[in-house]
Amino acid sequence: MTAKNLEEKLKAAGNTVDMLRNSKIGAYVYPVVPTEFHNWRDEQRAWRETAVLFDQTHHMVDLFLKGPDAIKVCSDTAINTFKNFPVNRAKQYVPVSHDGYVIGDGILFNLEENHLVFVGRAPSANWLQFQAETGGYDVEVTYDDRSPSMPMGRAVTRKFYRFQIQGPNAQKIIEKLNGGPFEDIKFFHMGYINIGGKKVRALRHGMAGAPGLEIWGPYEEYLDIRAKILEEGAEFGIVPVGCRAYATNTLESGWIPSPLPAVYTGEEMKKYREWLPANSYEAMGSIGGSYVSDNIEDYYVSPYDIGYGPFVKFDHDFIGADALKKMEGEQTRRKVTLAWNDDDVRKIMGSVVGEGTPYKYFEQPLANYASSNYDSVLANGKNAGFSMFTGISYNERKALSLATVDNDVEVGNEVTVVWGEPDGGTEKTTVEKHQQMEVRAIVSPVPYSEVARKEYASGWRTGK
Amino acid sequence: MTAKNLEEKLKAAGNTVDMLRNSKIGAYVYPVVPTEFHNWRDEQRAWRETAVLFDQTHHMVDLFLKGPDAIKVCSDTAINTFKNFPVNRAKQYVPVSHDGYVIGDGILFNLEENHLVFVGRAPSANWLQFQAETGGYDVEVTYDDRSPSMPMGRAVTRKFYRFQIQGPNAQKIIEKLNGGPFEDIKFFHMGYINIGGKKVRALRHGMAGAPGLEIWGPYEEYLDIRAKILEEGAEFGIVPVGCRAYATNTLESGWIPSPLPAVYTGEEMKKYREWLPANSYEAMGSIGGSYVSDNIEDYYVSPYDIGYGPFVKFDHDFIGADALKKMEGEQTRRKVTLAWNDDDVRKIMGSVVGEGTPYKYFEQPLANYASSNYDSVLANGKNAGFSMFTGISYNERKALSLATVDNDVEVGNEVTVVWGEPDGGTEKTTVEKHQQMEVRAIVSPVPYSEVARKEYASGWRTGK
Repeated sequence: MTAKNLEEKLKAAGNTVDMLRNSKIGAYVYPVVPTEFHNWRDEQRAWRETAVLFDQTHHMVDLFLKGPDAIKVCSDTAINTFKNFPVNRAKQYVPVSHDGYVIGDGILFNLEENHLVFVGRAPSANWLQFQAETGGYDVEVTYDDRSPSMPMGRAVTRKFYRFQIQGPNAQKIIEKLNGGPFEDIKFFHMGYINIGGKKVRALRHGMAGAPGLEIWGPYEEYLDIRAKILEEGAEFGIVPVGCRAYATNTLESGWIPSPLPAVYTGEEMKKYREWLPANSYEAMGSIGGSYVSDNIEDYYVSPYDIGYGPFVKFDHDFIGADALKKMEGEQTRRKVTLAWNDDDVRKIMGSVVGEGTPYKYFEQPLANYASSNYDSVLANGKNAGFSMFTGISYNERKALSLATVDNDVEVGNEVTVVWGEPDGGTEKTTVEKHQQMEVRAIVSPVPYSEVARKEYASGWRTGK
Repeated sequence: MTAKNLEEKLKAAGNTVDMLRNSKIGAYVYPVVPTEFHNWRDEQRAWRETAVLFDQTHHMVDLFLKGPDAIKVCSDTAINTFKNFPVNRAKQYVPVSHDGYVIGDGILFNLEENHLVFVGRAPSANWLQFQAETGGYDVEVTYDDRSPSMPMGRAVTRKFYRFQIQGPNAQKIIEKLNGGPFEDIKFFHMGYINIGGKKVRALRHGMAGAPGLEIWGPYEEYLDIRAKILEEGAEFGIVPVGCRAYATNTLESGWIPSPLPAVYTGEEMKKYREWLPANSYEAMGSIGGSYVSDNIEDYYVSPYDIGYGPFVKFDHDFIGADALKKMEGEQTRRKVTLAWNDDDVRKIMGSVVGEGTPYKYFEQPLANYASSNYDSVLANGKNAGFSMFTGISYNERKALSLATVDNDVEVGNEVTVVWGEPDGGTEKTTVEKHQQMEVRAIVSPVPYSEVARKEYASGWRTGK
């Protein structure tokens, strides 16, 4: 019998960890956007030194919530407070399971009275849709899925394009596009900008360590708006960022995009698993990396583990609140950046040529090879956390990873990241036969980038 | 004044070498096909060990020639003989300039009486179209251009899909698809195969070192045929090859896809340059690499330089014949594979992290960063040829390049490849600031692959 939903698929598979570690879904792709417009080294450099155009049109789900209960369903499922969330405001939305573990996160935009859109990876969108549709809320849900990972020449459409203009010269480009001074939008507040005679919706953001804008509008205007921004931004050195470099900006700014959604266990989550199709992100997704446990719950992270502790507000009731109240005083891990030892990284890279079993290929600039990445971090030879997002920052000329580690592992300590999977590797299509390697890494602040640390608005990424 | 054609563009630019070395066109892309289906290491391994599906639907021009002079225009422009070229036969077509230098190459299929198709890069297709349209030939030309390098979500269409089934298990897959024994087509002869109830045109080929088939048909059937091949081939380990690994198969088999077309100089070529649009491959393309000369003619290669000497047949008159008759006895260079020193390659790769100016980034598996690639090869400190196509063969666990070197440089000799461009690099968007490095390399046979050397049919790649 073919499984019709996640719950059935898990039952058929036996062990959830085995199922996800051997998923054949392939790489987590940032689709449609070309791999490189210039080259990934200069594209990274541009967000630090001049300006970039990030194209976020294709890789995220847009979930629209319309109706009197739009805010209520979000509030009921979020660790975040919804006080002070009027129209034209955005916030990071973090839902957790009944047991208080992270399902995902993303950005929630308050577009107009009773009309929100959530933008992010599928797990949070799916959960929000499930709650909205089954929780007795007076809200209408529209799910605009991310673009296909492999369009193979077929036309792709979304409801909206979505861009960010970021980098030290972003402000100048925005003012030039706008044809004059630009209204002073506060961080995560929304306003409007003129682009080529069109009034375009905008969110003040700061993805790459300097203030910038996220803008969106009808998909029909996607390529025209893009061309206009690049044309006007040329004199300020704007560079369009390809899909290879895109996700690596978070290595410098410190957001972990891909914790495993904590939905695979728990009786209270069973209805959700029966609702989730057998081809959903949760059912098809993959776990990669050296960390292996028989128990899928060992892969769950709490909001405290990955820097969302300060978001947890018990000023409202929400799913998981009781569990988090118990966890609150006992958080044992926190988010850090790991700065990998150059010589060890070179040893990995160099093993692609020559004799012997190579180390796991270190894809550049983004080295992840699964939907969710869990490499063991060892301190004094014992497991002390997970390394969860790995790649190269050419700005720092470093291999960096974002990790959650035990509180007693201090900034400046040397830890070990185990790179590669045991026993030659799993059956994931992204995994060639390889051997593991222990990589030295220095525990470092998050965000790692000195620029980001200085200029980032307090809040959603730093958790301050 | 905006240049309307190549000739005007060259005049405006001043120095042709400068123009092409600083082209902003970006990487030479193998479009539409996803970067990786599994991972490039295993995709390469599959063509050596099991079977692969190469998708050649998008990256080549199809030029259709229909009419009584279809063969004549080809014969008049090719170094190759057209004796023994009946319907259902294919051949490698190599046109040269009036001065006898290579314009390009590709495969010419004799589809039916007075109906040929040329499949290959733009330079040969453009030249053939020009000759057909301006040379007084009774032939109708249809130019089906390659797919756009950056479709950005727009639908892509071609007239035909084009696949190859290659690798040691290709024959078994072909027989299974065909539903029984498969007619014995000789190398570069054409026939038919049944796929999913459809009669599909096929060419016996051997791109990856073992006999296989190239098949094509209406683009509308592209994805259905693809799905059928992958479904039936699964039990034989067929792997679809992504665009990153695709072009690297030639590192093992020895074809140089991208010599600079010898069209930029010569009074007799002027009319052609005036015919070529200012946005043509020839006008937009780029030269990358360490070799720099003020004179664009120094980048031209003769058929003898890149292994096509045996194709030159003076049994017919053709453009460039007189020049080649003079060159014939005086060929000074020949095609070889260069096997790069592992430690030197590691030094390049490792420079992506750490302090100091890095070496030119070595993209894997294909390290080219221009339309045409010219790295200096030094023997005893003196220029002794060009290295023209560079990357990693994971099957050989080696960085390899295809080169043309002086005849007195022998197989087994160590030479030096200068990797990277002088003075920190040109303005190409694929080039980040870097320093040059001298890489040791062993001159090796072509094809490099022992398997390919043994099993390749004599002819089009080995030139025997």
